Amino acid sequence: MALRHPQLTERGELRHLLTIEGLPREMIHRILDTAASFVGVSDRDVKKVPLLRGKSVFNLFFENSTRTRTTFEIAAKRLSADVVNLNINTSSTSKGESLLDTIDNLVAMHADMFVVRHAESGAPFLIAQHVDRGRGRGHVHVINAGDGRHAHPTQGLLDMYTIRHFKGDFTRLRVAIVGDVLHSRVARSDIHALTTLGVPEVRVIGPRTLIPGGLEQLGVRVFNDMREGLRGVDVVITLRLQSERMRGALLPSAQEYFKQYGLTQEKLALAAPDCIVMHPGPMNRGVEIESAVADGPRSVILDQVTFGIAVRMAVMSILAQS
Amino acid sequence: MALRHPQLTERGELRHLLTIEGLPREMIHRILDTAASFVGVSDRDVKKVPLLRGKSVFNLFFENSTRTRTTFEIAAKRLSADVVNLNINTSSTSKGESLLDTIDNLVAMHADMFVVRHAESGAPFLIAQHVDRGRGRGHVHVINAGDGRHAHPTQGLLDMYTIRHFKGDFTRLRVAIVGDVLHSRVARSDIHALTTLGVPEVRVIGPRTLIPGGLEQLGVRVFNDMREGLRGVDVVITLRLQSERMRGALLPSAQEYFKQYGLTQEKLALAAPDCIVMHPGPMNRGVEIESAVADGPRSVILDQVTFGIAVRMAVMSILAQS
Amino acid sequence: MALRHPQLTERGELRHLLTIEGLPREMIHRILDTAASFVGVSDRDVKKVPLLRGKSVFNLFFENSTRTRTTFEIAAKRLSADVVNLNINTSSTSKGESLLDTIDNLVAMHADMFVVRHAESGAPFLIAQHVDRGRGRGHVHVINAGDGRHAHPTQGLLDMYTIRHFKGDFTRLRVAIVGDVLHSRVARSDIHALTTLGVPEVRVIGPRTLIPGGLEQLGVRVFNDMREGLRGVDVVITLRLQSERMRGALLPSAQEYFKQYGLTQEKLALAAPDCIVMHPGPMNRGVEIESAVADGPRSVILDQVTFGIAVRMAVMSILAQS
Repeated sequence: MALRHPQLTERGELRHLLTIEGLPREMIHRILDTAASFVGVSDRDVKKVPLLRGKSVFNLFFENSTRTRTTFEIAAKRLSADVVNLNINTSSTSKGESLLDTIDNLVAMHADMFVVRHAESGAPFLIAQHVDRGRGRGHVHVINAGDGRHAHPTQGLLDMYTIRHFKGDFTRLRVAIVGDVLHSRVARSDIHALTTLGVPEVRVIGPRTLIPGGLEQLGVRVFNDMREGLRGVDVVITLRLQSERMRGALLPSAQEYFKQYGLTQEKLALAAPDCIVMHPGPMNRGVEIESAVADGPRSVILDQVTFGIAVRMAVMSILAQS
Repeated sequence: MALRHPQLTERGELRHLLTIEGLPREMIHRILDTAASFVGVSDRDVKKVPLLRGKSVFNLFFENSTRTRTTFEIAAKRLSADVVNLNINTSSTSKGESLLDTIDNLVAMHADMFVVRHAESGAPFLIAQHVDRGRGRGHVHVINAGDGRHAHPTQGLLDMYTIRHFKGDFTRLRVAIVGDVLHSRVARSDIHALTTLGVPEVRVIGPRTLIPGGLEQLGVRVFNDMREGLRGVDVVITLRLQSERMRGALLPSAQEYFKQYGLTQEKLALAAPDCIVMHPGPMNRGVEIESAVADGPRSVILDQVTFGIAVRMAVMSILAQS
Repeated sequence: MALRHPQLTERGELRHLLTIEGLPREMIHRILDTAASFVGVSDRDVKKVPLLRGKSVFNLFFENSTRTRTTFEIAAKRLSADVVNLNINTSSTSKGESLLDTIDNLVAMHADMFVVRHAESGAPFLIAQHVDRGRGRGHVHVINAGDGRHAHPTQGLLDMYTIRHFKGDFTRLRVAIVGDVLHSRVARSDIHALTTLGVPEVRVIGPRTLIPGGLEQLGVRVFNDMREGLRGVDVVITLRLQSERMRGALLPSAQEYFKQYGLTQEKLALAAPDCIVMHPGPMNRGVEIESAVADGPRSVILDQVTFGIAVRMAVMSILAQS
């Protein structure tokens, strides 16, 4: 099954980054440590290092996301790679070429890395699998930039970087993830990362309709009441509420959602006094988060963005070395 | 009010380029002098200088304009910057993220420069203001690449470069701007530049419906009769007639407009013998200008394009040093 | 007439690459030899050479083709050029600017090379002609990246590279081109290249409705029966069947076409034992080619893609030197 393709080599090196699930704790820390060395690069006058000079990075976005594409484009350019952006909805697949033929062609052009965003869960796995069966084996690397509801590993890693930066030790934290966990690849990646890194208490908070079953088996505590769930937490990760959800039967209205699950200053007061607030963006202000919180002193939302560039540089440079 | 945000630092350095209005004469000349040093670069075999190496320039085009975007992209690449193009109509704002959240995100990615095109007057001011209030203060620079009917300062500056190149001294010139002044950000930027640089006689020529009120206060002479207005001028700047205007009640028809305000060889004969003809492009041949004039010996329209690259390189390099 | 614009200088140097028709055999071999020197570059760790450093290459795609655009973009970047992509359907031509005004503007920005894809035959000739009459003369080069049904010279050249790579000598080969020859610019370019290079037997195979008249004058043998046409050939070039053809009266159905003209293992058995199979891509599997053949041991389809980058680098570097 595609979602099981190994992303580590037999020697334990990172060959692709497809999901945080199953990624060893040491590998996560290695990525975060490498990212730390890149945080300074973006601050310098000349924000470039030559680690990927002459490499060809392809942004394969089968689903439109200017924001995520931009972060990978910047990360690759700061590593001195050549970047080619392909929005594949409007491209050769419309000429009837199959996804895997497109991949074969790009491999034949000596691509070094594919950054893949796809609306269907498992697409990056399928691509990695295909690459490893063909001429790209061993020298073409795949990064999952978000696949369906499944995973968004670089988001999970940058969230971990942010938590480590502000909280230091993972093993004493209470972390709450609030919102539409059911449809969120970010939540899934965060839960895997947090439990791997030894966070003793991971909570999810949301309405019954937006919490998937089986979370307890992962060691996660589920709360439907937000005030209860926020009590004493050190980190709150607020999830974006897709506006599509509102149109379905899953939710009553944005106002009602905000009342119950919107992160307000008043609800945040129940968390630990130095609790940090995170959000993967883009935010719906007044839906899942109050502006006073988003722009307030506990918000580290823009730090996440800054660290996200460094984490993507780290992933790319580690892959390029493997 | 957004349109009043200061683009100069307290020490008089250029922090942003938002409008020519209020820009000191010395600063305009400094930009033109710097541009002169770049004109040669585009002529060289290796058309690159390393002044913006490792800098990240974002083209934020909220309004589609391949032509203007291309000039900034080339200018930035010839300065060795990394350029990221964002067409924001189809992007995260469609996901409900606000303009200013988008800006905050790009600042958090360590952007160095925003080139902003927007259909609404004042948008680049708003962005500059927001940047200066946040983490980008002092190191993120905004260039207005055209905002609504308000300003298009790099076009104004390249027009001044062109006039200075062909005419030398501004203080003895008669310059006529012909056409739809009412809707033209180019006209507005040119008028401010010309009066600041000491041009003694600035004329505008056009039908009553397309000339805004209050121009006389800026020291501008208004002509509704083109032959009268062209008499003895040294420079004619022909404005593009937006085809939308024809559909409204403002104008009778393209043919009628051409008859009255189209720049023909016959009308041009009334100007000074060495009069130069300018146009910001793209031209509507046979509407505001006759092909014989556009391609004729007095046309410097393509020189404007060449100088435009050098002027944009100059603005970017001056901003990067501030 | 536009299609007759000379692409060679008086001294026989390549000024533009517009068509293979009339290109001397020595020039074709020179391009292939230069390409051979670039094949290694894409294999290296740092896939870049500085031959076009500081040059500005514009991809002018009036017809959408992500695939072809990507190959030129990669080739130019591996030569260290600055690349600007312009999709001109959505651009200034929609503002009423003429094609030639757009070209004049880009020349005025000191473009070095235009890679032109256009739905109309002759458009790149028109552009080359216009460039040579104006300021771009002698230093702006045009590459035809496919114009209407007319020509696709870099595809023809990469096909020749592939044949030379696998077969060595052109002068003893039997080459069959199968499919929709009538609408194929690839077929036209291949036929000119093969006959110029001295291939003694060039065959085309296809239904009467898809074979143009007059091929016999070019020394080409026409077959309507595929089995007959494939007998003993050393090279099969399968053409893509545009799905539009099926909707017209030219063809019965995809199934019927596959039955008669689809390249299957069974039909391929009639060719020479070491016959190679080529396809310009993107493939319609199950229409013009069976997957077992496309992915089989005789297929060199992905080699074509790899060589295509080297051939485009060769053409660009030869033009830049002229």
